[in-house]
Order: sequence, then structure tokens, then C-alpha cells
Amino acid sequence: MPSIIVHGGAGAYDPGDEHERGLLAAVDAGWALLVGGGSALDAVEASIVSMEDDPVFNAGLGSSLNIDGAVECDASLMLSDYSCGAVGGIRRAKNPIRAARLVLERTDHVLIVGPGADSLAERMGLPSGDLVTERRAELHERNLERLRAGEDLKFMPRIAGLSEEMGIGTVGAAALDAAGRLAAGTSTGGLMSKLPGRIGDGAVIGAGTYAGPHGAVSATGHGEPIIKHVVAGAAVDAVRDVGIREAVASVLEIGRHHEFGFGIVGVEENGATAWGFTTQAMSWARRDDSGTTTFLGKEISIGDAGSEQTG
Amino acid sequence: MPSIIVHGGAGAYDPGDEHERGLLAAVDAGWALLVGGGSALDAVEASIVSMEDDPVFNAGLGSSLNIDGAVECDASLMLSDYSCGAVGGIRRAKNPIRAARLVLERTDHVLIVGPGADSLAERMGLPSGDLVTERRAELHERNLERLRAGEDLKFMPRIAGLSEEMGIGTVGAAALDAAGRLAAGTSTGGLMSKLPGRIGDGAVIGAGTYAGPHGAVSATGHGEPIIKHVVAGAAVDAVRDVGIREAVASVLEIGRHHEFGFGIVGVEENGATAWGFTTQAMSWARRDDSGTTTFLGKEISIGDAGSEQTG
Repeated sequence: MPSIIVHGGAGAYDPGDEHERGLLAAVDAGWALLVGGGSALDAVEASIVSMEDDPVFNAGLGSSLNIDGAVECDASLMLSDYSCGAVGGIRRAKNPIRAARLVLERTDHVLIVGPGADSLAERMGLPSGDLVTERRAELHERNLERLRAGEDLKFMPRIAGLSEEMGIGTVGAAALDAAGRLAAGTSTGGLMSKLPGRIGDGAVIGAGTYAGPHGAVSATGHGEPIIKHVVAGAAVDAVRDVGIREAVASVLEIGRHHEFGFGIVGVEENGATAWGFTTQAMSWARRDDSGTTTFLGKEISIGDAGSEQTG
Repeated sequence: MPSIIVHGGAGAYDPGDEHERGLLAAVDAGWALLVGGGSALDAVEASIVSMEDDPVFNAGLGSSLNIDGAVECDASLMLSDYSCGAVGGIRRAKNPIRAARLVLERTDHVLIVGPGADSLAERMGLPSGDLVTERRAELHERNLERLRAGEDLKFMPRIAGLSEEMGIGTVGAAALDAAGRLAAGTSTGGLMSKLPGRIGDGAVIGAGTYAGPHGAVSATGHGEPIIKHVVAGAAVDAVRDVGIREAVASVLEIGRHHEFGFGIVGVEENGATAWGFTTQAMSWARRDDSGTTTFLGKEISIGDAGSEQTG
């Protein structure tokens, strides 16, 4: 039985109607492929492309801007046979997740970043363009003013006061197809006002995305501690022994212990999905044979976290 | 009791006298700091800088060239308190490991790549220059001819026949200082003839470098599977329960099972060091209170692997 779960980021935010519509469109795009016998990889890609094209999310069009006002996206994909591909700091590919798939399928590499990633995507015929939206440009200007008031931008030693913006609107998906294959993917514009060239967990296999024979997960939130604590890898490692629900619960403990905010969704080889977060809110939607469920995190207060299972 | 182990890469090669001299100089540079009360971080950095400055190794000066003939270095550092920093695809910093330390100490990020990494390093005053050596330029030309004979470079779908070059001359170090702090680091020019922007395990926390309260390791070899199987993270995860020697042995099993070549060195909180490899050869040197040991992998035949402990 196929199964898919998609997320729209974790952080301190209140997902509105547009956010919900975007999640539903994404989960439907993936589900349509799965019920037609499509692969988990195709489904995860389609769900993420749908959210990258929707400027309400921080991925693809409408991505956060870095400190110089440019878009630099991270995206990654991984399958249950351990094959994977990722791009980091890609600036012009309309759909960074498709560039990650190119790395997976057309190169012997796992991660390609910066101008090399854009050049690969263009050479392979992926559509490119300007991903900066008016809304993001305004947010950028407002944030720059805040930073100018407090800090010396010339040396940019530390970016303070931005933690509430972290991970908001990053997108991801995890799916099981009818043939029993698993896939997971993540795509993000990353941290607002990040330094140029900063790569977050969304491009790092083991951090934002991981998959193996027993499970596939996508994590989102404060990228740096997610990398440090190898969050997605730890979750997938635990699935075989304790199942996806307990695996998610175990990595939430890492977040609570080390005091960082993140959310995670995942799917198990039996089709069970699970989710959880240590941030104020998270949004996700899932679909399986029993129908669609959405969660917008509105009623969750700071510090709460949830993890449940379907199957 | 302080302790340090450094390596000069794993692969199919025969380390010569220059290689041995370089390893000894590196381990001495780190040891001199440790016996003077210096930090594990300073010792690991000093050992790696020594090898980056030595063109016999594939790191810093004398790094492998990418398919376009340019140097793109990866480097990473991590401490037992989980703090870490890394750079990927950096082209002009004379000592990429020092750029990784800047990311660790002067930014809120973990990984900065490409032109952003070079710009950060220059802004912070790190020496820069041309890292291409005559020897590497010749190897590059010879390899291009081989590739031109066999493949369409325009699309560069797969780089075949280069596996014997992988990881050769990557450098790394792991150390325990007198205050009980652990650190590990890795630095590399990466895979010869790689696509521009390709980031290997040397820049990825959890893959080439990892550390935690109980151990610190540096891995080297075929970067892509090292990333896929989160090799350094898995080794450090295992140290608390089984010690560094068994932890190294357990990740060698991952390499044998999934059939990829790599080597690893590590140190445990009690100062014990361990090493092992699934490649044809590996080189390392270690030093503690009982003196210096070097290993040049000359007598190891293909398929053999070793792992031993001191302390």
C-alpha cells in the first residue's frame, strides 16, 4: 500500500490557508503518481516541485534571501537503496530538487554546490530563472535594517535574533510506493540573511534527508544543529529496531537535550508515517489508502511536540 | 595523557619516503602543542596545516584538480562538544582547515562553500594563493586524455576508471589534549577530475569528520559512499559502548558490506587510538607518551585491513 507524507517546515509561525492549500496540492501530486504505480522517487519529487513552485514556501520560487540579497537553495533526495543526490547554494534552477535528482541519476557524485550546481543544471536542460519574489525582497530589506542597527556587517561574525525565522517554509516529503521502495527529499532556501555559500541540513545526506531499506525521513528546522547531530541518519538508523514512530520520538529527544528546534516526517517500510517537532509549530499533510490528513500546528504551544502513527 | 594520530589518505598507492617525512612532521607539529598544554583543536589544525603545506599530499598546496583544471578543497573540524566548522569547494585559501576553523569560531554556520568560502577566508585575513602544482597539472592533463578517449566530456555523466585514485593523499588528524578535550579534522583536494562544485566527505560533518564526548575520528577514501553511510558519525556513535578499536572495526564492516574503499583513524577519551581501512593501503602516524609509530601500508595486500589499539 503506498503512503506519502509532506511537510512545509517547522518553526515559530502560524500556517495560513495558502499554506494548507499548498500542502494539499503537494501531497495530491505525489499521491496521484503513487496510485498510478509510480515510484516513491517520482512522488517525492513531484510533491516537492509543487511546493517549490508555490511562493508561500521557502523553497524554489520565493526562497529566503542571503545577506547579499541572493537566493541560494539546498535540496537533497535519497532512496531505500542508499542512492542519493544533493545540491547546495544553487541560485538559478527553478526546481532545486530536480537538480538534486540529476546529481543522483547522472553523476557519480552525491553533493554538487555553488556555480558548479547551476552549471550542471543548465547543461542538463533544467529550467532556470530569477527566484527572488517581492515579498522576500521586502523581508530581506527589513531584516538588513535590523542587522545594521545591531551589528557590523563587514565581518558578520554571528547572526543573532533570527532563530524564530529558521526552517520556516522548508519543504520535504517521504513516500513508500507499491513496489516497496522508499524515498525522501528536502528543499529549502535556507536561513534568511545567511552568509553567502552557507549550506544547511537540506543539502546534507544524514542531516536533512536520509533513507535506508527500513525507512525514509525529511527533517527541517535549525540546520546547523541538525547537521551536528546527524538527525535524519539517526532516525533512519532507529527505524528497523523500534519503528518509525519511536524513531521520530528518539530524535526529538536529541533536539530537546541539545535544545534546538526542528521537525521531522518519515515513512516506514510498512507504510506507517510519523512526525514530530521541537519547534513552536510545524505543518504537514499525509495521504494513504484511508484518505488525507493535514496538520497546521496552530494549536501547539511552545515546547509541545507530537508524534503519532498511521498505517 | 595527550595523544594524536594523523593520516595521509587511503587508496591503492605506495607511500614513499616523502610521504613518511610529511606524516612525521605533521604528527610532531600537533604533539609539540599538546605537550605544551595546547588544545586538541590547535593540535589537529597544526598537523593538518603541516600536510596542507606539503605538496606530497592531496590537500592545500598540491591538491587534485577538478575536470576544469581548478583546485577545489574540502576541510572540516569537530570538537567533543559538537562544535564544528567546514568549507567545501574553496579555491584560494592556502590552508582550507584554517577556513573551516573560521566557520567554527566566527560564524553561526557549520558549512560554507564555493565563492562564499573564499570570500569569508579573504575577509578574515587568511593567506590565499594559487594551489595548483606542476605535478598535479601534469596528472590532470594525462587523465583528461584518458577521459577524452572514453567519454563525452560535455555531459560528464559518470567518471569511470578513477577509483584507484580516490582518497589518495587526503589528510586528517584526531587528538586528545591534557584537559580531556577531543578534536578531529580532515582536509582534501578531493577526487581527481571531479565535476566543479563536487563536495566530498571531507566537508561533511558525520561523513569525513565527527567528534563527540567519547571519541573523534577522521575518515578518507571514496567520498560518496562515506557520505551515504555516515561513516564518521557511525564510528563515534559506537565508541561509548565498545571503545575506539571496536568502533573502527564496526565501520570497516559497513565498507566491506557495501563494497567501498575507505580508511579511518580515531582517538578515544582515554587516549587510545585506532585505525583501519578497506582500501589497498593507508598511511598514518601517531604519537603519545610512549613515542611515535608510523604505518605506511606497504605490506598490505588488496582486501586486507588492520585495526589495532594503543593506550
